[in-house]
Amino acid sequence: LAALIAGGLPLTSQGGRFVQTSAPPGVINLGLGQPSPGLLPLAEIGRAAQAQLAGGGDPLVLQYGAVLGDPEFRGSLARWLSDAYGHPVAAEQLMVTAGTSSALSFVSQTFAAPGATVVSEDPTYFLANGVFQSAGLSVRGVPIDEHGLDLVALERLLASGVRPAFVYVIPAYQNPTGACLQPERARELVALADRHDFLIVADEPYVALRYDDSAPFGSMMRHDEGRARVLSLGSFSKLLGPGLRLGWAHAEPKLIERLSLHGTLRSGGCFNPVIANIVHHTIDSGFLTAHVEQLRAVFGARASALTAALREHVPSARFEPPRGGYFCWVGLDESIDSEALLDRATDLRFIPGRRCAVERALASFVRLSFSFYEEHELVEGVRRLARLIS
Amino acid sequence: LAALIAGGLPLTSQGGRFVQTSAPPGVINLGLGQPSPGLLPLAEIGRAAQAQLAGGGDPLVLQYGAVLGDPEFRGSLARWLSDAYGHPVAAEQLMVTAGTSSALSFVSQTFAAPGATVVSEDPTYFLANGVFQSAGLSVRGVPIDEHGLDLVALERLLASGVRPAFVYVIPAYQNPTGACLQPERARELVALADRHDFLIVADEPYVALRYDDSAPFGSMMRHDEGRARVLSLGSFSKLLGPGLRLGWAHAEPKLIERLSLHGTLRSGGCFNPVIANIVHHTIDSGFLTAHVEQLRAVFGARASALTAALREHVPSARFEPPRGGYFCWVGLDESIDSEALLDRATDLRFIPGRRCAVERALASFVRLSFSFYEEHELVEGVRRLARLIS
Repeated sequence: LAALIAGGLPLTSQGGRFVQTSAPPGVINLGLGQPSPGLLPLAEIGRAAQAQLAGGGDPLVLQYGAVLGDPEFRGSLARWLSDAYGHPVAAEQLMVTAGTSSALSFVSQTFAAPGATVVSEDPTYFLANGVFQSAGLSVRGVPIDEHGLDLVALERLLASGVRPAFVYVIPAYQNPTGACLQPERARELVALADRHDFLIVADEPYVALRYDDSAPFGSMMRHDEGRARVLSLGSFSKLLGPGLRLGWAHAEPKLIERLSLHGTLRSGGCFNPVIANIVHHTIDSGFLTAHVEQLRAVFGARASALTAALREHVPSARFEPPRGGYFCWVGLDESIDSEALLDRATDLRFIPGRRCAVERALASFVRLSFSFYEEHELVEGVRRLARLIS
Repeated sequence: LAALIAGGLPLTSQGGRFVQTSAPPGVINLGLGQPSPGLLPLAEIGRAAQAQLAGGGDPLVLQYGAVLGDPEFRGSLARWLSDAYGHPVAAEQLMVTAGTSSALSFVSQTFAAPGATVVSEDPTYFLANGVFQSAGLSVRGVPIDEHGLDLVALERLLASGVRPAFVYVIPAYQNPTGACLQPERARELVALADRHDFLIVADEPYVALRYDDSAPFGSMMRHDEGRARVLSLGSFSKLLGPGLRLGWAHAEPKLIERLSLHGTLRSGGCFNPVIANIVHHTIDSGFLTAHVEQLRAVFGARASALTAALREHVPSARFEPPRGGYFCWVGLDESIDSEALLDRATDLRFIPGRRCAVERALASFVRLSFSFYEEHELVEGVRRLARLIS
């Protein structure tokens, strides 16, 4: 098979007018934190649109929408999340968003004064900082280890006088490290938030995408216990398709209410009510549940293929096998600068560790995504990485 | 007919789970700047969705979208706008937005430092200030008269040391006054922007909705002449439906490029690519053009019915007959406080002038919308206003 690929078997690719990032044939781009084109359920979204819009639906879905979103959609979402999280989620705790990239901007404007500081895991999602910076916020990093945010380091930063408006964390299957925030640490983080009066903004797109037999990891909200210290942001981007631009905020109603007072919502009404109406159908029909099950099987197998190939072809690589999410965080030999490595690569792309770093030096790390390519392509990608290193 | 209404003929109403603002039966709410429910083209949006999504479209429309939007959509939009505006619009000048309420937030973050000042027409769209305030900006008002922004007053404000990041104007059929910015003033405003280094953010949802036989009013962009001083925001909210949450930014490519560097777009890709794909079909099929023609006929007749009723029942009212847009701005007897009037009303709502004011005292004015109700309902609304005043 490897011979076939080397001989020109077409790789998964995407390009053309619709996409933010093209993946030209011949290159394996392990930087792409996107579902494979083949996993995007356009036909089902089309069927849902037909049922909700063409089939004599309520024209008022085209009017300025109820600020928090359609209560029936929020009810269906709450039931789905309660099941996916393994703990209860109430409709009153939910507000519809236009996806997490957009929500982070509105959350920044609502919960942080311009010029304020945000504390983020280090390393973190490499494009989140740009959203914070566009909102006029500055970002400080606190290291994350295999059990999540390093709270000793956070306490040290707080003791030094840094007063964060919020701490931005990705508790489940973190981007880029894949780490999960231990429950004890999560509870301690909420206690710290209470003591130092900051909000915890939890970016949680991967919770439903777990690949081991453990119980559902759940949302950071399970540790909030009514204290209104956690604002969790979820998204359909990694479950149905990023182009839907649909997600949710999940928090105590008083935080949801505060977010809903943003001028954009008071003026324009609910974010993306038509898309929410379409997605509503995919929840109630059971499609979303079935599709996520399929994603878990596909992505779980891809994660295994990637890590097996790493063990075989890059035996010096240090990594934790991903238990969920989209990414594997790989430490290469410390003498390697992964940005220089990337510069030399002609048929392989990845995200060098330094791009994910906030304040740390992570030059020898790489973030490899296993969401976009099929198993044999991931194996070939790792072979190319091994050749590049050697 | 009036007797029938008084006797209980049901009025246009809306309510239920989907809407931001309900209009209960029995009350005439002339504050509603929304299309009538009967004018929302759900069936056509459903057909377009079916054609684009269910009919074997490209699944990549569900991927993270090209930051500025699908170039083919932008091309179709440019052609439609060139026709609606009566002057050329190029695809390279366009970026897809999630509607103007959202775009104003991202424009504020991109083109104004936190704490900066925005100058706005006084009176202005009463919910725009909330968007600016959520972005940490402060707002100063400059009076608008029947020919648009008072540039003498603006120059006085500039001379006093105010340095606006941008001047926010609604050049065509202004909300709430219905005024149109005279071309000479528009050109002078651009010259002032050049001299004092500010941007002009033009909110232009009503340009296509003109009800007289004049030539198309066009966009503020026709006066920019390549100087990159104008950023025009357009929207499908008043043309197809607010719930679509779809609009566009229209400016010189270097301004569009700067807006597209916002962290939210770099992370999440294009705003609302799936909805843009659906609306694309309504442009290319000719539906949008036909629908806007229908809106012009319907709204034009409603504007005439409203102003005729005002002349008959509130002869002391001062107003300019609307030539386009959604609103009629009515000066009542100066002894009247329209907020107190509204407090006394049981079967009538409207927007009191003071809500639209920035710095001026406009207590005796009311903003009446003619977009939501049918002609006979508007007449009955004016009768109720007359009874309330007397």
